[in-house]
Amino acid sequence: MELINDEFYMQLALNLAGGTSGQTGVNPVVGCVVVQQGRIVGLGAHLKRGEAHAEVHALNMAGSEARGATVYVTLEPCSHHGKTPPCADRLIAEGVSRVVVAASDPNSLVAGRGIERLREHGIEVEVGVLGIKARAQNEKFNKFITTGLPFITLKTALTLDGRIATRTGHSRWITGPVAREAVHTLRHRHNAIMVGVETVLADDPELTTRLSVPGLHPLRVVVDSRLRILEDARILNDAAPTVILTTDQADAEKAERLRQKGAELVYCGSGSRVDLVAAMGNLGERGVASILLEGGGVLNGAMLQAGLVDKLMLFYAPKIIGGEGAPAAFAFAGPEEMSSALSLSDVSIEAYGGDWCVTGYPIDAGSPDT
Amino acid sequence: MELINDEFYMQLALNLAGGTSGQTGVNPVVGCVVVQQGRIVGLGAHLKRGEAHAEVHALNMAGSEARGATVYVTLEPCSHHGKTPPCADRLIAEGVSRVVVAASDPNSLVAGRGIERLREHGIEVEVGVLGIKARAQNEKFNKFITTGLPFITLKTALTLDGRIATRTGHSRWITGPVAREAVHTLRHRHNAIMVGVETVLADDPELTTRLSVPGLHPLRVVVDSRLRILEDARILNDAAPTVILTTDQADAEKAERLRQKGAELVYCGSGSRVDLVAAMGNLGERGVASILLEGGGVLNGAMLQAGLVDKLMLFYAPKIIGGEGAPAAFAFAGPEEMSSALSLSDVSIEAYGGDWCVTGYPIDAGSPDT
Repeated sequence: MELINDEFYMQLALNLAGGTSGQTGVNPVVGCVVVQQGRIVGLGAHLKRGEAHAEVHALNMAGSEARGATVYVTLEPCSHHGKTPPCADRLIAEGVSRVVVAASDPNSLVAGRGIERLREHGIEVEVGVLGIKARAQNEKFNKFITTGLPFITLKTALTLDGRIATRTGHSRWITGPVAREAVHTLRHRHNAIMVGVETVLADDPELTTRLSVPGLHPLRVVVDSRLRILEDARILNDAAPTVILTTDQADAEKAERLRQKGAELVYCGSGSRVDLVAAMGNLGERGVASILLEGGGVLNGAMLQAGLVDKLMLFYAPKIIGGEGAPAAFAFAGPEEMSSALSLSDVSIEAYGGDWCVTGYPIDAGSPDT
Repeated sequence: MELINDEFYMQLALNLAGGTSGQTGVNPVVGCVVVQQGRIVGLGAHLKRGEAHAEVHALNMAGSEARGATVYVTLEPCSHHGKTPPCADRLIAEGVSRVVVAASDPNSLVAGRGIERLREHGIEVEVGVLGIKARAQNEKFNKFITTGLPFITLKTALTLDGRIATRTGHSRWITGPVAREAVHTLRHRHNAIMVGVETVLADDPELTTRLSVPGLHPLRVVVDSRLRILEDARILNDAAPTVILTTDQADAEKAERLRQKGAELVYCGSGSRVDLVAAMGNLGERGVASILLEGGGVLNGAMLQAGLVDKLMLFYAPKIIGGEGAPAAFAFAGPEEMSSALSLSDVSIEAYGGDWCVTGYPIDAGSPDT
């Protein structure tokens, strides 16, 4: 049994926010619960970028019962005029008594202003209740808003001996249906999905979100330095927009034919390989706040080496395929000393059917608690 | 990571409902989530008896996006005019496509009518998603609505050797602060709290809900056949209403003085002891749908023997006090054969600080899954 206290109501607000993960674009997920003398009188979440914030939905539900109430909100109420009026002003206008905030604004330039504004108007404000959970819930948003770069989750299915296919290239399926459903859930929760052209040539994937209920399709991004993608690749269908990252060396005629198929071409550097650092900056400028990186091994290795990966989710099937010729999950030349190997922090393990997902954060990259 | 599917949205609806446990009076807790093409567009819960149902709050938030949406609701939408118009009609009017229901109406006389009405209007309806959880969440309501009797949760703190005080009667405190906070959470979640007059005389408790945030105070009920309660007992203060259950043999003058102090007297039988079966019927008629029974040992034993207890929550401190003269948690003469002992089903154990709570359901009484 949960105890009823500040954490109880904040957890409910976090649940409201968590439900909307994937549908707020570059905006954070936010939940809000309004409590009047031991009774919940309002519930809300931010549902879509440009539309009402969580506080507004919850205060609308509460009506006149907001006066004197305690408001639990997972993120510091905004104090500026964005696409909607400032929530701090609405809270003041409604006459609430107390505001409990889980996490302050991750942007240090504006952090605390909403809280300050509430306090100036005599509202009691408490900050930090379930703050670690709230920051972890918005880990993608937090990186994007502070750096302008997308948060990158590297996901791969692999065997216990670290391979993503047999020596003949056969890879369907490594993991079982539950793990695969988890991957589609991850697609719903990221703005974009990114693969290398080798994966497109080998598997001809559609890279859409296929769940037992409707999901949101991410932007599809292919890293393809030499434009080797086939013009009838399924990734070029109209289920979702597709961006091809390439270089100035790419063939102009092929580029034009791919544009005719609806793809957008983005030029990242003049070298023989896509400049991945430049590519991430470019995608960030386009409002891509989060990317699910689904490899294969060469792209995954390059992204790791470039220090661009914020989080890894490794779905292990309880299988050993043998190391002779079977492609590696991370195809890059690592350091000479074992002590220099890439280390993960905040590691957790979760079962998905008969498979296991190891989640962790590369040290010196993003971390859920910072 | 939770997978996004029907269960995911229903769990969110259950979380919304769970947050309001204790504030809906004799009404069930109900949560609702509206999803339009992979996007949550409405969230709601039933907040107070007589006010909007969960579906109405969620549809109000969804606005025009309800058309063609899937609606997840933890309890079958009502099809009759009660204190508010039928939710089934509102769902039909909004043009939703699909309704996923966790539990059908527990009242078998009306169960299925709301679902049938939706289907008659071409809405796809699925029933039973997380149905077991939904029924468990409304276990108190389900008993009340089907029998007219309150659901009774027996709670006691006790030592590992089954005692509720030392041989001198000293009982503060058996369990630690976390377990005691859990008890106050239970008070918030029941309509009434019931004790025997021995407990009132020994401890002079206030029997209010004291949490780190405001809680709702239950109706206070004292079983006092001979009106031994002192007129300055704290339970007679004005923090919450108080009912004294007594018998026709009670002293009329004392009864009048207690009424002057604000207590309501309810006469249950003409014998020397309160007729507990009659008392529960009377409280049910007054709209008491749930009672937290906090003993002591004699009343707890009598309620168990009478078959009136639906659920036990036993908070064990890791202590042994010794059986010579220390009062027993359940002071009644049990059966002769061990095989005839009262058995519990659906037993679960949860830690509260250094203490442990064993929860179970007496067999042949209520059960969470039925």
